Amino acid sequence: MLGRLRGAMTDSGPDVFLLPGPVKTDPRVLQAMMRPAMNHRGAEFKEILAEIRALTQYLFGTKGKVAVLSGSGTAGLEAAVTGLLRKEDRVLNLVNGKFSQRFHELAQVYATATPLSFEWGTAVNPKKVSGALEAGSFRAVTVCWNETSTGLTNPIAEIAKVVKDHDAFLIVDGITAVAGLENRMDAWGIDALVMGSQKCLAAPPGLSAVALSTEAYDSLHSDTSFYTDLKAHVDALAKQDTPYTPAVPLFLAFREALRMLKEEGLENRIARTTRLAEAARATVDALGLQLFPDPKFASNTVTAIRYPAGVDDSVFRRILREKHRTTVAGGQDHLKGRIFRIGHMGICSHEDLEAGFRSIEATLREMGHPIAHAGAGTGS
Amino acid sequence: MLGRLRGAMTDSGPDVFLLPGPVKTDPRVLQAMMRPAMNHRGAEFKEILAEIRALTQYLFGTKGKVAVLSGSGTAGLEAAVTGLLRKEDRVLNLVNGKFSQRFHELAQVYATATPLSFEWGTAVNPKKVSGALEAGSFRAVTVCWNETSTGLTNPIAEIAKVVKDHDAFLIVDGITAVAGLENRMDAWGIDALVMGSQKCLAAPPGLSAVALSTEAYDSLHSDTSFYTDLKAHVDALAKQDTPYTPAVPLFLAFREALRMLKEEGLENRIARTTRLAEAARATVDALGLQLFPDPKFASNTVTAIRYPAGVDDSVFRRILREKHRTTVAGGQDHLKGRIFRIGHMGICSHEDLEAGFRSIEATLREMGHPIAHAGAGTGS
Repeated sequence: MLGRLRGAMTDSGPDVFLLPGPVKTDPRVLQAMMRPAMNHRGAEFKEILAEIRALTQYLFGTKGKVAVLSGSGTAGLEAAVTGLLRKEDRVLNLVNGKFSQRFHELAQVYATATPLSFEWGTAVNPKKVSGALEAGSFRAVTVCWNETSTGLTNPIAEIAKVVKDHDAFLIVDGITAVAGLENRMDAWGIDALVMGSQKCLAAPPGLSAVALSTEAYDSLHSDTSFYTDLKAHVDALAKQDTPYTPAVPLFLAFREALRMLKEEGLENRIARTTRLAEAARATVDALGLQLFPDPKFASNTVTAIRYPAGVDDSVFRRILREKHRTTVAGGQDHLKGRIFRIGHMGICSHEDLEAGFRSIEATLREMGHPIAHAGAGTGS
Repeated sequence: MLGRLRGAMTDSGPDVFLLPGPVKTDPRVLQAMMRPAMNHRGAEFKEILAEIRALTQYLFGTKGKVAVLSGSGTAGLEAAVTGLLRKEDRVLNLVNGKFSQRFHELAQVYATATPLSFEWGTAVNPKKVSGALEAGSFRAVTVCWNETSTGLTNPIAEIAKVVKDHDAFLIVDGITAVAGLENRMDAWGIDALVMGSQKCLAAPPGLSAVALSTEAYDSLHSDTSFYTDLKAHVDALAKQDTPYTPAVPLFLAFREALRMLKEEGLENRIARTTRLAEAARATVDALGLQLFPDPKFASNTVTAIRYPAGVDDSVFRRILREKHRTTVAGGQDHLKGRIFRIGHMGICSHEDLEAGFRSIEATLREMGHPIAHAGAGTGS
């Protein structure tokens, strides 16, 4: 829990950075980039890639093939789609937020894509997925495991079961899920799982990683992509190499963040993230605010909160940022002005979250919004 | 010139890093990455992108549209090809080295590609390009301006003239050319020019930039690419934005490297690079060694040198690296074991190059190879 929500706040503490990504990075991770140029085809970088490969398997909880790409999460998603699908292949895109919508747009470029839409803030319904798969012949299904735009986690295990029952590939945007939510990709039958460096791993933005099932790896082709050719990336990493010049500083930071994850323990990080999310939701409740998504599917890595009537998004976030030095995200697309979002993944601490909510409470008061249970903590 | 080539050398100096990329980075550029996570959609990052956009135009010597991608030089090449061509479009790929060969392989994925090959180490012959363009209907021509693999600079202005005469787009890999060789892209008629962050700009690897002619920009489509959708990148940067999460630390380093370029002056950097290349070639001659490429087209950013008979590449480069702490590159593909390559672009100094050649001379001596003019400087 977040302790007492003090009405008084102070500007003397450090900046509080609670975006749902990029997230706060540890100085160790930043410091890892402070290296003179190195030969990315030399022995030392090969050792770095070997360590990264092993730790990336740990990150995904898999013994399968993995790749690390010099590109954002979108590059990883593209690699999975272009590697597994061709333009004539049908793919079902489960859409219930901005990032699953973008995933659909990406799929349209490289395959024959059909959206199956759910209202933003509601979860994907596995029964409807089953119905759509019965009705059409789809080679693959895409889903955004954790919709950052709505603060909602889709029921990935149930979705995976339905997709496996229909013998399709499941390609998962796990950008704000991997290392934040419980993950059993091999057992569940996820075929391609994509993460982004700047989320639950708490490395800087710029890299993405992909983990593959055996069947997915065996099905990869290189006919429609070059920079994001997933097979080239997987096969190169298996030989401690990269197909093209890697973003060396980001690989060094990524390795350090992976080491920190290993030191903490993947299970411990996920459990800690869960505790932070529970504390965040309890505080939202104590402040008389409301979650945006269906509470049964509220995300453990991102909390999306409805603005109370009369609270202007741009004013709220400006006061929060300029006076209270606290950064949160607004809503996207049609949720702009209607919600704000808090990330509590990666190395976000209890203190960060508590300070963030103190600032939020103070800002709401300053904007004349009455706080329901001012000063009321939520127990421990 | 490189001063006297002392037979004696010392291990007490700093490491000498003379790869043809990534190249040595200034501590200022590294330090620029030491920033806590920032909101890449916030006001401060918009200012950074505005500055980067203006300085990238300066870098290319253009007033036209530019983009900066979170990906290596290959991503930039892909962006240009996928933006300007479709699978049914014919493209002529001028091939005379490893990187132009790779450019051809990339083009094969996205267009109908025909190679026009020249022996590695010889230059593209504009007359033969003209002949090929007469014989076929090509929408575009690709060329690697400076072939890093062979240390050769192709006659870009003449090639551009031929391509313009045939009303085709000219897409140029300028990865080791831009900010190292004289560049008049607008006057010559280059339609798409691609650079990589880790070469003549001396930033870390991981970003690429593309500059476009007006006609090329007006012809861009977004139908066959997503992550490297050039139109999306150009249009976003014009609004101080990026289509996907940018690699923030690399953008900060890129900006700092651009500032250093501006401080030195683009013309001055190119002139300095030219002087270093002349000194390198004079020293090669003084050591009784031979350039690999046709000397008339020897590159000013990369010098490729033939191994004397009996000098083993892996032994040579190991001694050079381990005993003399000097890093150079070997040959690639069929040139492996036959040549070694020295980069002298970016912030490479006269002292770096001199120290590198001292180490090279010492290593050759230690390997029992007689040096033609030991201790003989080359004037100046």
